Amino acid sequence: MISVFGHLNPDTDAITAALVYAHLLSRSGTPATAYRLGEPNQETAFVLRQAGMQAPELLPTLPAGSPVALVDHNEAAQSAPNLADLDVRYVVDHHKLGDLTTAQPAYLRFEPLGCTATLLLKLHREAGLSVEPTDARLLLSAVLSDTLEFRSPTTTDADREAAAFLAPIAGVDDVTAYAMQMFAAKSDLGDTPAERLLKMDYKEFTFGAQQWGLGVIETTNPGYVFGRQAELIAAMQAEKVASGLGGILLSVVDILGETNRTLIVSGAEAEVVKGAFGVEAEGQVADLGQLISRKKQIVPALEAYFSK
Amino acid sequence: MISVFGHLNPDTDAITAALVYAHLLSRSGTPATAYRLGEPNQETAFVLRQAGMQAPELLPTLPAGSPVALVDHNEAAQSAPNLADLDVRYVVDHHKLGDLTTAQPAYLRFEPLGCTATLLLKLHREAGLSVEPTDARLLLSAVLSDTLEFRSPTTTDADREAAAFLAPIAGVDDVTAYAMQMFAAKSDLGDTPAERLLKMDYKEFTFGAQQWGLGVIETTNPGYVFGRQAELIAAMQAEKVASGLGGILLSVVDILGETNRTLIVSGAEAEVVKGAFGVEAEGQVADLGQLISRKKQIVPALEAYFSK
Repeated sequence: MISVFGHLNPDTDAITAALVYAHLLSRSGTPATAYRLGEPNQETAFVLRQAGMQAPELLPTLPAGSPVALVDHNEAAQSAPNLADLDVRYVVDHHKLGDLTTAQPAYLRFEPLGCTATLLLKLHREAGLSVEPTDARLLLSAVLSDTLEFRSPTTTDADREAAAFLAPIAGVDDVTAYAMQMFAAKSDLGDTPAERLLKMDYKEFTFGAQQWGLGVIETTNPGYVFGRQAELIAAMQAEKVASGLGGILLSVVDILGETNRTLIVSGAEAEVVKGAFGVEAEGQVADLGQLISRKKQIVPALEAYFSK
Repeated sequence: MISVFGHLNPDTDAITAALVYAHLLSRSGTPATAYRLGEPNQETAFVLRQAGMQAPELLPTLPAGSPVALVDHNEAAQSAPNLADLDVRYVVDHHKLGDLTTAQPAYLRFEPLGCTATLLLKLHREAGLSVEPTDARLLLSAVLSDTLEFRSPTTTDADREAAAFLAPIAGVDDVTAYAMQMFAAKSDLGDTPAERLLKMDYKEFTFGAQQWGLGVIETTNPGYVFGRQAELIAAMQAEKVASGLGGILLSVVDILGETNRTLIVSGAEAEVVKGAFGVEAEGQVADLGQLISRKKQIVPALEAYFSK
């Protein structure tokens, strides 16, 4: 039995890709079970409810040598804590290749697409398998989530084509209305503790000799988030110390306005942000304008800055 | 223009995969040129003559940031010397994933198959492109070469199916007779210097803190190779010192007998061979029996030994 899972601090693409790929592997004769590496966010919970699906179980500690499939990630820092001891047989991902290695020749599929879901649709087509309605709903939701309904610069024509193909199978007549419902669910942060808001979509990256934490909150209601700015900055400061980070940023992305205002905790981050983006922070907020993609815009700029 | 190349000390799969993948990329709208990272061996020269093709040019030193496609390898030690400065956009390979990273999301295809050629046939099918006769000849040759005409334990059903599909397109009526011609060409080592024999199919691997060099000579005429044993062991000893290796092995694989007798240079290698394979060397030869695949049998056993 192959265990299939997406990254820590899972988003909609990570959770749905695990469910759909486990199903696809099983239908192709390789029994597989989906797991998650953290709590689904509000958007993912909404998507699962709409699809009539339960969230996958939390990944237990797998014995060394267990066969696994990674979806929507490949770096150890974003994966199961004992990844180095596991037997990575399959990877389906749309991120750059990081520190992954495999003990044996494996099945790896990486493409520079807006989301893992678009690649999973391609795998169905290659296998000659139809996409079942529930899977279509999960994949469509992941495309809309990861591309911010095609607003993100990571969006490709293949992502648009995938959404158009999947919507009728999923029974979604009005894709824009459905996307707005997803984004509203994601933005309904209620009394979520600041620590959880920071970690909802949060990844660590290595830049030169430093480890940085980069969080993103995508919301249709940035005012709510900035209303909790002091709490969030305290949570960032605590995480920075606890994890010995060189820096920590929390980007608040206004989905509808397609803008990014990023919270910073100290002068160290302010200096890096100035060097990497040419932006002067005001107070503890740096206006990064239309740089809304961590993967395609924020991380490459920081990598370029630190490799100077 | 994407530069496409296989590994150092190229074999038939490495050279033909570069030619065929460059052609496939170009036909798909991405202009690409094939290169090689060393001299074609006698078998590859025969295959190219039969296909009416020239060998690709030797890879020049590419400027930093040049876009490249790697075929039939992924590890830096087997690639262009300045790989770390190049922009890896595509990888098509059937080896385990080593130390490769990419600066951006890229297109990666890895499958646990007997050769890269079988995966390249799959890519043609996915792209809806027919395989042209010259490409079919190159791919068929690579399948036969890497699987030792289906004798190697790395052979999969997909490799057999690929060869059966490609042979009529390539105009090869008798696949076994053609394979014998290829193996005879490979075994016609004439007065090739010992240093070149050692490096003809040679790769370095990292086991724990040690770097090892593992050469293979696949031949229908092992008697010829053992007739040059003293010269070969001297070349191995020189390479071991020059490259600061922890150990060096040269496996002489009898293609038709499907057996492997491996040359060793010192007691250090003898001890490792005994620990990893349970085989006592006699003189400077260790009889590894039917372990004829470096990738699937020799390297995993050495990795297991060194990770104890």
